[in-house]
Amino acid sequence: MKYCSKCGGRLVEKVPRNDDRRRHICSDCATVHYQNPKIVTGCLPIWQNSVLLCRRAIEPRSGFWTVPAGFMELDETVQQGAIRETWEEARARVELLAPYSMFNLPHVNQLYIIFRARLMDLEFEPGPESEDVRLFTEQDIPWNDLAFGTVRQTLRFYFQDCPLNRFPMRSGTVVPNANGFRFEAGPDDELEFMGSE
Amino acid sequence: MKYCSKCGGRLVEKVPRNDDRRRHICSDCATVHYQNPKIVTGCLPIWQNSVLLCRRAIEPRSGFWTVPAGFMELDETVQQGAIRETWEEARARVELLAPYSMFNLPHVNQLYIIFRARLMDLEFEPGPESEDVRLFTEQDIPWNDLAFGTVRQTLRFYFQDCPLNRFPMRSGTVVPNANGFRFEAGPDDELEFMGSE
Repeated sequence: MKYCSKCGGRLVEKVPRNDDRRRHICSDCATVHYQNPKIVTGCLPIWQNSVLLCRRAIEPRSGFWTVPAGFMELDETVQQGAIRETWEEARARVELLAPYSMFNLPHVNQLYIIFRARLMDLEFEPGPESEDVRLFTEQDIPWNDLAFGTVRQTLRFYFQDCPLNRFPMRSGTVVPNANGFRFEAGPDDELEFMGSE
Repeated sequence: MKYCSKCGGRLVEKVPRNDDRRRHICSDCATVHYQNPKIVTGCLPIWQNSVLLCRRAIEPRSGFWTVPAGFMELDETVQQGAIRETWEEARARVELLAPYSMFNLPHVNQLYIIFRARLMDLEFEPGPESEDVRLFTEQDIPWNDLAFGTVRQTLRFYFQDCPLNRFPMRSGTVVPNANGFRFEAGPDDELEFMGSE
């Protein structure tokens, strides 16, 4: 950020009055340009004892498997965003059941929110950003070919919760480390490890 | 948004290739400037059968009562943001228990995430953005002087859940209407009404 999106003036970085962190401020019109984390919204579509995953056709992590998810847009709810992304990536219709995982990715300034969802029928196919879409039982999950740690951790929690048929909201933080990433569980979960990417 | 924050060029609004909605795009360097909803993070600090509320000293809704909450910042988790806001607004230290409410405010492009939290001691006082901070039992809640519908709805759910000592995650959407605002419960909650502001 170098220029003011409002007036085109040069931005300077300084701490505004009554604030305690550096912001981008316009040297001409004094507008403060705040930057904030973004929300990634998606769902885990469930059909009987299987879940729907998409094989990514685009970077990052092209060729790897993910749950349908993407950036929440203006003028939609986080639920509408999850349903929209599922249609865009898997041409699948879902009914959301409940929010399930809420994971921080502070190294990329994202908050990842995934809903458990019921797949409404077996009509699905790859959307433009996917090269394949398939149902997987727990035994078939391509654990070594998952696109993101958030996907691995959501699937781990899900198959751990399935036998009890009880799905508490799971929260935590994905922290990069020397081996890839580590998962730190939120206040209501015990510590879990996600392993390397 | 009129100017490119990267090169200072004029922005135009159009639908980029492989996209389906209008974005601000630089006519010089072609950078697409996405806009996304922001996260408001906070908590409901609990002490025995009371909750801590802050009377706002700033607009909007100056003089009205709220839970400590504010915009999530870069480089923090949503949990760290909730703890930070509680310190800034109420000079109170809390231990987070679990995420509790997740409310969409699509008319202002915000997602509001509130944690249940345990107040760690009785040392609290107004921070610079508050004019008063107090503990309220259910009977004392200033229902007619609450700052935001999200606060009212969080408190309603909380005192409804207290007798059962079971606090499922609550999700929903605040929708402006002729009388103020209406609350539409998320997929896992029955419909509730919030009434007017």
